[in-house]
Amino acid sequence: MTISITFPDGSTKNYKKGTTAQKIAEEIGIRNVIAAKHDSELKDLTAPIEKDCKLKLLKFEEPEGKEVFWHTSAHIMAQAINRLYPGAKLTIGPNWESGFFYDIDMEPVTPEDIQRIEKEMEKIVSENFTIERKVYTKEKALEVFNSNPYKVELIKESKEKEASAYMQGEFIDLCKGPHLPRTGLVKAFKLVKTSGAYWKGDQKNRQLQRIYGVSFPEKKQLTEYLTLIEEAEKRDHRVLGKRLELFMFHDWSPGSPIILPKGTIIYNTLVEFIRNEYRKRGYREVITPQLFNKSLWELSGHWQHYKENMFSMLIDSEEYSLKPMNCPSHVLIFKSRTMSYRELPLRIADFCYLHRNELKGVLGGMTRVRKFSQDDAHIFCTQEQIHTEVTNLLDFFKHIYIDTFKLPFKAYISTKPEKAMGSAQKWEEAENALKHALKKNSIDFGIKEGEGAFYGPKIDIFVKDSLGREWQLPTLQLDFQMPERMGAEYEGADGKKHTPVMIHRALIGTFERFIGVLTEHYAGKFPLWISPEQARILTVADRFNYYGEEVKKEYEAKGIRVTVDSRTESVNYKVREAQIDYVNYIIVIGEKEATAGTVTVRTRENQIIGTMSKQEFLSRLIKEIYCKE
Amino acid sequence: MTISITFPDGSTKNYKKGTTAQKIAEEIGIRNVIAAKHDSELKDLTAPIEKDCKLKLLKFEEPEGKEVFWHTSAHIMAQAINRLYPGAKLTIGPNWESGFFYDIDMEPVTPEDIQRIEKEMEKIVSENFTIERKVYTKEKALEVFNSNPYKVELIKESKEKEASAYMQGEFIDLCKGPHLPRTGLVKAFKLVKTSGAYWKGDQKNRQLQRIYGVSFPEKKQLTEYLTLIEEAEKRDHRVLGKRLELFMFHDWSPGSPIILPKGTIIYNTLVEFIRNEYRKRGYREVITPQLFNKSLWELSGHWQHYKENMFSMLIDSEEYSLKPMNCPSHVLIFKSRTMSYRELPLRIADFCYLHRNELKGVLGGMTRVRKFSQDDAHIFCTQEQIHTEVTNLLDFFKHIYIDTFKLPFKAYISTKPEKAMGSAQKWEEAENALKHALKKNSIDFGIKEGEGAFYGPKIDIFVKDSLGREWQLPTLQLDFQMPERMGAEYEGADGKKHTPVMIHRALIGTFERFIGVLTEHYAGKFPLWISPEQARILTVADRFNYYGEEVKKEYEAKGIRVTVDSRTESVNYKVREAQIDYVNYIIVIGEKEATAGTVTVRTRENQIIGTMSKQEFLSRLIKEIYCKE
Repeated sequence: MTISITFPDGSTKNYKKGTTAQKIAEEIGIRNVIAAKHDSELKDLTAPIEKDCKLKLLKFEEPEGKEVFWHTSAHIMAQAINRLYPGAKLTIGPNWESGFFYDIDMEPVTPEDIQRIEKEMEKIVSENFTIERKVYTKEKALEVFNSNPYKVELIKESKEKEASAYMQGEFIDLCKGPHLPRTGLVKAFKLVKTSGAYWKGDQKNRQLQRIYGVSFPEKKQLTEYLTLIEEAEKRDHRVLGKRLELFMFHDWSPGSPIILPKGTIIYNTLVEFIRNEYRKRGYREVITPQLFNKSLWELSGHWQHYKENMFSMLIDSEEYSLKPMNCPSHVLIFKSRTMSYRELPLRIADFCYLHRNELKGVLGGMTRVRKFSQDDAHIFCTQEQIHTEVTNLLDFFKHIYIDTFKLPFKAYISTKPEKAMGSAQKWEEAENALKHALKKNSIDFGIKEGEGAFYGPKIDIFVKDSLGREWQLPTLQLDFQMPERMGAEYEGADGKKHTPVMIHRALIGTFERFIGVLTEHYAGKFPLWISPEQARILTVADRFNYYGEEVKKEYEAKGIRVTVDSRTESVNYKVREAQIDYVNYIIVIGEKEATAGTVTVRTRENQIIGTMSKQEFLSRLIKEIYCKE
Repeated sequence: MTISITFPDGSTKNYKKGTTAQKIAEEIGIRNVIAAKHDSELKDLTAPIEKDCKLKLLKFEEPEGKEVFWHTSAHIMAQAINRLYPGAKLTIGPNWESGFFYDIDMEPVTPEDIQRIEKEMEKIVSENFTIERKVYTKEKALEVFNSNPYKVELIKESKEKEASAYMQGEFIDLCKGPHLPRTGLVKAFKLVKTSGAYWKGDQKNRQLQRIYGVSFPEKKQLTEYLTLIEEAEKRDHRVLGKRLELFMFHDWSPGSPIILPKGTIIYNTLVEFIRNEYRKRGYREVITPQLFNKSLWELSGHWQHYKENMFSMLIDSEEYSLKPMNCPSHVLIFKSRTMSYRELPLRIADFCYLHRNELKGVLGGMTRVRKFSQDDAHIFCTQEQIHTEVTNLLDFFKHIYIDTFKLPFKAYISTKPEKAMGSAQKWEEAENALKHALKKNSIDFGIKEGEGAFYGPKIDIFVKDSLGREWQLPTLQLDFQMPERMGAEYEGADGKKHTPVMIHRALIGTFERFIGVLTEHYAGKFPLWISPEQARILTVADRFNYYGEEVKKEYEAKGIRVTVDSRTESVNYKVREAQIDYVNYIIVIGEKEATAGTVTVRTRENQIIGTMSKQEFLSRLIKEIYCKE
């Protein structure tokens, strides 16, 4: 009997019933396949295919491929621990964002233990066991795993009639799978850290040892990963932020950064940069309250859908919340008087603070915060104006990310989901407007079919930093719902009331997050225009301090952020310190300079720029700042 | 028998025991005296003086003089009501900030009633009754007032053994006094408004009628007052703020203004003005959290003394409050690493929002708010640096109030109170530093003996607006306590730890309040540099729109806030509208201007500036903005 297999490119082919994805992959010559999807089900490569289906062969590059690869790696680690520590009891072993881990009931592990385990894992890989799926009745499974109370608990709790397990060599583990066909495929791995964990996350239960690892199909990939991690650690914005005195955190305000003077310079410079664009691009800035009565959140729907994320309190016996978003207050402004179609598009911008109650456990540095500010704006426009508005928005976006920060990115349109508000025609028009706007701006984009929010399509943009990590910073979301729900209307040319479309947009996104990302992207060496200390003047002796102060005053009058180091330390010492502080330009001043009215300049990388008149270097600074290089 | 009277100038004189302040005033020829102070006790002019004392004769110009004058006026009104409405029952009648009122249990009063009452009051004034103090035992008092249940309740509640009352003609009222000697002295009065009120402010009690009045010793003063009120009403920032679209309020966020685009321009311009001064004057700006754990407020003392004024909530099962002041967070920054004496003075500036739980009933416009921002800064310095810091602060103050806003002011030093923290020497040094700093800045000042806060002396400054009203806008407060209490220390030149002095300072004060005051001061006609719309270009026909846009673009590139009105309305209509909108300059553009590259300009007061090249007028605008005229 034959079955028909459909491939991702749409082609179909007939195979014998019971064939496997592994055989098909070998036949059509695709290598390095990890697992397969039969329709939407993730399966072992060796699982027989019993009926017609769409088949997708998964490689490591795909998220589901990694999932399977890492899960097999966890089993290899578990097998090694089983061999080395007979008393150890395995519990569960899922994945984390960059690899696998396993929680094990055993004595705390030392670095020496980790080395031993890694060595044993290498042995298991070289033994290249076949990995075999077993399916047991619950009773049989309880018998097989009866020496491990955790597994017994898991089997008893399960609502399935059967339990699956995977076997490799002498080792068997209770597991849903799927897995790689052989242990020999895990060519490169490393155990990267350990921590304590509780069985089922409950502190009342026994503490377990959690061992984290990473693994790859190729040795080269592991090396690259470890280099990246090392580089990322050096650039960690929490470490650099502290050393360069950009920001700090305090236990008494978790998730709310205290932005120190140097960080505030960066912050304000970014705000002023955006504000300047707002002036050119017809945005109108407002300042809105932090606290609003529950009535507003009920009207906007946040009370029903977002209450847990808001900080709420009683005032005058009524419930108020700190705003998590600006949109509802902008609708209040829109509704404050009769709006005419002549006033559209109305672009309301707002830098006010937002608060969201993120779990304390996930807060971290500037990228996961509870209090923040955005370059947030809401555009109220007609359906017909969407195209022009989005075209201009993307131009604005390009000005920030291409012209200014020179960061590569990927764009996607998320289209109408199954459950959606508004007519099919409205959606189609809007989606077409987004597509044309992207094309008009020569931006390549992908389509995420059906992934739009129920209230409107959006453009997702992922920005890549200098380490190749992707960040979703900008927001560009169409909204057919909120204006209607909150009763925002304008008077059309026909004298009748109409509901505007609302575009939620932030390009920088969250300033705190953006500054965290920039700090890592530049490794703390900020470009001149946003640098907190653009130049430092070092005097070689006290008698030249007057000239140092003169240059400083002259430069400051032109807006340069410059300091003087007039301490009686050696010039070499002072240069080294300025370099450690990542000051963009280091100006040394002595007899020659004071007499001739010149400055001698080098960069923080110790590149000599040379000696020139103080005015000439000032002009160079101004030009570089103006060009945002 | 004689007694010795000491006068405010320090001179003393002997009088017969039992003489009155009235007789003494007549004897030394002082007119228009209202009441007297025997030592610290406020007394009727006719009260006999029985022992040696300091005597102060009070006129209407003094707050306590007004108090007595208004209180007698309330009695005259009560007498008139008693005559006209026999069923009316008086309750209590204290003063309000500009006059007197009385709460009366009677039918609601109509404008006609008010006229009748005023007429009857005039009669009582012309009858010129002697006002006589009576002192009764409680029993007797209950007998005299037995027909009025409110007065009976007041007498019963009183902890005194006796009760005093005042009699004028046929009318008697329970009252502590003091009062004027005769009803004829209330030469000018007017009843200004009525409202409902509850007995003892409790809604469960009966509703009373509250009638408000103002009164003066001279008719001229009443006329002046009424003119001022009329002018103030025209300038009311709540009315102008709405009409000019500067800010709005919404019931869902009481006390938190929504600052509209035009108001935000003023707001941001003021912030940028201060920020620019900060750069020159060595301030370092920070951005701090809105929410802090109770632990911070316990350490700073706010939890013990200010809790009721903070908005508090539970987060992660712990109490947090929205910050009402920035100082404690600035101390956290100071404490975040070891500070050296070389880093002092450290001037930390902060524009972050503050929240204070003012009673909902007293909120009003921009001057009584719950959410606001200040040009707040804290200077950490040594005792020796106080003088220089305050001298520079006063220079900064003068730059804002004299050079820029041209507002007159009065200054006072408040000195060591009885209960004070820190040694007498420390206080004397600090007070001297304040005095010298004021003298060095040629600022006249008064002394408020003993009126300093327990933790340090301060300078109080009252600024006068164009209507002569005084506003306490800036803050300049020395603080010996908070750094010690919170454990802020620096390492001295001696290698030991020392506690810095902290100067709390805000010069603009609260931006919201300042904008409210400025709006009334300028009656909405803002000077060019802070004006939301500095110029409006009116085209006389569509074919000149291109030139209008050209001028706009050129002016905008130089930072001018300019719009184009290209509607097909008549020029006169468009000019009138621009004038109503208080646009500083109105530029008309037609054939002549488009051909010659000129602009024809007039002011919002319709003063013709003339025709000139567009560049020349741009230069004029830039110069005027730069000079902040």
